[in-house]
Amino acid sequence: MKVLVLNSGSSSIKYQLFRSEDWVALASGSVSRIGEPEGEIKEEWLDASGNQQSGRARVPIPTHQEGIDRIVKALHETRVLGDVSELAAIGHRVVHGGEHFKRPTIVDDAVVAAIRGVVPLAPLHNPAHLAGIEVARRLFPTVPSVAVFDTSFHQTMPRTSYRYAIPEWLYREHRIRRYGFHGTSHYYVAKCAAAMLGRPLEGCNLITLHLGNGCSATAIRDGKSVDTSMGLTPLEGLVMGTRCGDIDPAVLFYLAKNLGLDTDAIEDLLNRQSGLLGICGVNDMREIDRLAEEGNDGAELAIGITAHRIKKYIGAYYAELGRVDAVVFTGGIGENAAEIRCRACEGLENLGIKMDDIANYALEERGERCISTPESAVQVLVIPTNEELEIAQQSLAAASETPVDG
Amino acid sequence: MKVLVLNSGSSSIKYQLFRSEDWVALASGSVSRIGEPEGEIKEEWLDASGNQQSGRARVPIPTHQEGIDRIVKALHETRVLGDVSELAAIGHRVVHGGEHFKRPTIVDDAVVAAIRGVVPLAPLHNPAHLAGIEVARRLFPTVPSVAVFDTSFHQTMPRTSYRYAIPEWLYREHRIRRYGFHGTSHYYVAKCAAAMLGRPLEGCNLITLHLGNGCSATAIRDGKSVDTSMGLTPLEGLVMGTRCGDIDPAVLFYLAKNLGLDTDAIEDLLNRQSGLLGICGVNDMREIDRLAEEGNDGAELAIGITAHRIKKYIGAYYAELGRVDAVVFTGGIGENAAEIRCRACEGLENLGIKMDDIANYALEERGERCISTPESAVQVLVIPTNEELEIAQQSLAAASETPVDG
Ligand SMILES: Nc1ncnc2c1ncn2[C@@H]1O[C@H](COP(=O)(O)OP(=O)(O)O)[C@@H](O)[C@H]1O
Ligand SMILES: Nc1ncnc2c1ncn2[C@@H]1O[C@H](COP(=O)(O)OP(=O)(O)O)[C@@H](O)[C@H]1O
Repeated sequence: MKVLVLNSGSSSIKYQLFRSEDWVALASGSVSRIGEPEGEIKEEWLDASGNQQSGRARVPIPTHQEGIDRIVKALHETRVLGDVSELAAIGHRVVHGGEHFKRPTIVDDAVVAAIRGVVPLAPLHNPAHLAGIEVARRLFPTVPSVAVFDTSFHQTMPRTSYRYAIPEWLYREHRIRRYGFHGTSHYYVAKCAAAMLGRPLEGCNLITLHLGNGCSATAIRDGKSVDTSMGLTPLEGLVMGTRCGDIDPAVLFYLAKNLGLDTDAIEDLLNRQSGLLGICGVNDMREIDRLAEEGNDGAELAIGITAHRIKKYIGAYYAELGRVDAVVFTGGIGENAAEIRCRACEGLENLGIKMDDIANYALEERGERCISTPESAVQVLVIPTNEELEIAQQSLAAASETPVDG
Repeated sequence: MKVLVLNSGSSSIKYQLFRSEDWVALASGSVSRIGEPEGEIKEEWLDASGNQQSGRARVPIPTHQEGIDRIVKALHETRVLGDVSELAAIGHRVVHGGEHFKRPTIVDDAVVAAIRGVVPLAPLHNPAHLAGIEVARRLFPTVPSVAVFDTSFHQTMPRTSYRYAIPEWLYREHRIRRYGFHGTSHYYVAKCAAAMLGRPLEGCNLITLHLGNGCSATAIRDGKSVDTSMGLTPLEGLVMGTRCGDIDPAVLFYLAKNLGLDTDAIEDLLNRQSGLLGICGVNDMREIDRLAEEGNDGAELAIGITAHRIKKYIGAYYAELGRVDAVVFTGGIGENAAEIRCRACEGLENLGIKMDDIANYALEERGERCISTPESAVQVLVIPTNEELEIAQQSLAAASETPVDG
């Protein structure tokens, strides 16, 4: 059987097709610039002899319906998908599940309504996901669509972690609280880490660091998320590509009063002009690394602040967990930026963290690996994440069982 | 000689008079409700035989000038102050010194202008301090007025701690950064802690926790502040009496967009209706303790969130410092709330923190004390703060030397 994973954004749809027998990715790609005069479709696929092929085309893609049609047509044409009956499930990435969704869920009308119900919490993402979900349900009425939420892994947090110190009615009436995101990635690397440690996930205390364009840290006790750095939205926590992360909320009052910025301008400033980009003018960590080596002061500062904040979260979550088996780095930065890993972990010997500099800086290494010394009480691991695979596997599992609750 | 300490707020002035030979507080008190139809003056003083006396009176106090006049008159009448020539210095508490003031500074016209220059950073506090400073300079032209800043102890922070991940021009042009507050208290208890540890302050790594109505944590390396939890303003960081502390800045966007609140309403909500008060309806920790013991769920949650956040800062600053000699609790909550101390430090054995529960819960104890076990690698100390004494001593020192810079 096969599982199609869709990540439907407001103007693009990413997809990946897996074969469930061995979880090989048969094809992946995207349609982008939906609704613009000229759209684009990109595809990579395995041909009959197992060779990687790729193609791209520019065509207008007026709607999400047209976008998913194009994806299916491409899957057929490249012969990675024959009949629709080969599809066991379609897994949809959904950013926000609110407090309602604690696990992957087969989509029916009630689920669509519940996802719509949390649109105020994710006004940009959830409507785009719903567009993809509704098209998929129309096009493939016989294939279960499964919603997999970025928030659901964090639904095990205790309220001391998820409640903000704001008036209680804001939680009671508006569900304003910490939700956390990147849950699929944190859970995926946590499972891999448990396998590397040779124990069941339920026996592992971990600090997982997903460092991509968005960045978040999660404290995992006995395999369950007990705290995470992103909050009501993905703006809180670590320094990100263009997002500010933790900041005095009074900075917003200063910007409103002294610079006359309105809410939309401040939101744009903190979400799209801040983070690495705000500090040094560049948001790609490869470029920042290069600039810092050339002696660029802003790039050096961007690396310094980023690593400093990661270190503080490692310490905070270490204190929260009391005992930590491993610290896990993942995401584009976590998997590749040795300098960030080095600075985030240096001087933590008293926490039982001893980095192996040679292993850390072995840049040709790509897969799962340990970058701490054998004496390190806490293992430091690098684990490439694979959110699409995790969504595919969770979707197939959900489609194969009767859902327990909504 | 004697030193008068003034803490001038927008509608009240607190004062304390010290004898510099033995730093005994000869008198203390306040004038309040300045500008209201009926003001109030309270005084406590030591009489000639060394007994504590107190008095209060209700009189209209139209201006800060009238308020300080009243204070001086009271000091004369109670005979704790004879001639003005007995005053070696007047120390003024000033909340915000921006980046300009790195130490206590004798006030001249240029200093007044510089304090006025940072009014945008402390729009409520600095104008009130300036009112007190200007009256004192007029009334006592021969006595040096010294400004002692809540921010100056934190001016040693490295930029990786004090810069936010927002566009660089906001720092360059508007000086938006972490400043930190409670510096006088953190420095005072750090000196006491060094004395208890029997080493010079320059050799001590400490985590100091000032937990009063406002709360902040500071990481001290080699006697110098290297990080602190309050930021541009005192709103960031730990949970406080009525302030939210750390929060997803996007909560503010949610409040603006979905609840239609304007900037002033949000500022009021996060500064005056949040924190302990927001979580459980009460902002006095004594009352919250009592309610929690009766099984009140909100009070229990308020204690839980408060302790959780303190623990996270202990961990974060431990990681930042790498090695910690002592964790120091001070302020009304830090000195008295054993339950908060217990929960904030429990489970930190892997950080070398082992609480002595009997010492921690010895409620009759009042002075400086150690509440960790003898085996604890990190000592946990309770040290009553005394910001007024610290201001008095720093003011006398500044008045006795030629200022090195501004
Ligand atoms: N070799 C590398 N060295 C340093 N940073 C890298 C490297 N490769 C990718 N990155 C960084 O990873 C980030 C993107 O991470 P990724 O996980 O792909 O993002 P997303 O969150 O969008 O999935 C970018 O900042 C990129 O510069
Ligand atoms: N015995 C006590 N037990 C618990 N909390 C106490 C006790 N005494 C004072 N507090 C708390 O200390 C806080 C005030 O601290 P304080 O340092 O006096 O405030 P400020 O920051 O205004 O100087 C209040 O929350 C108060 O309830």
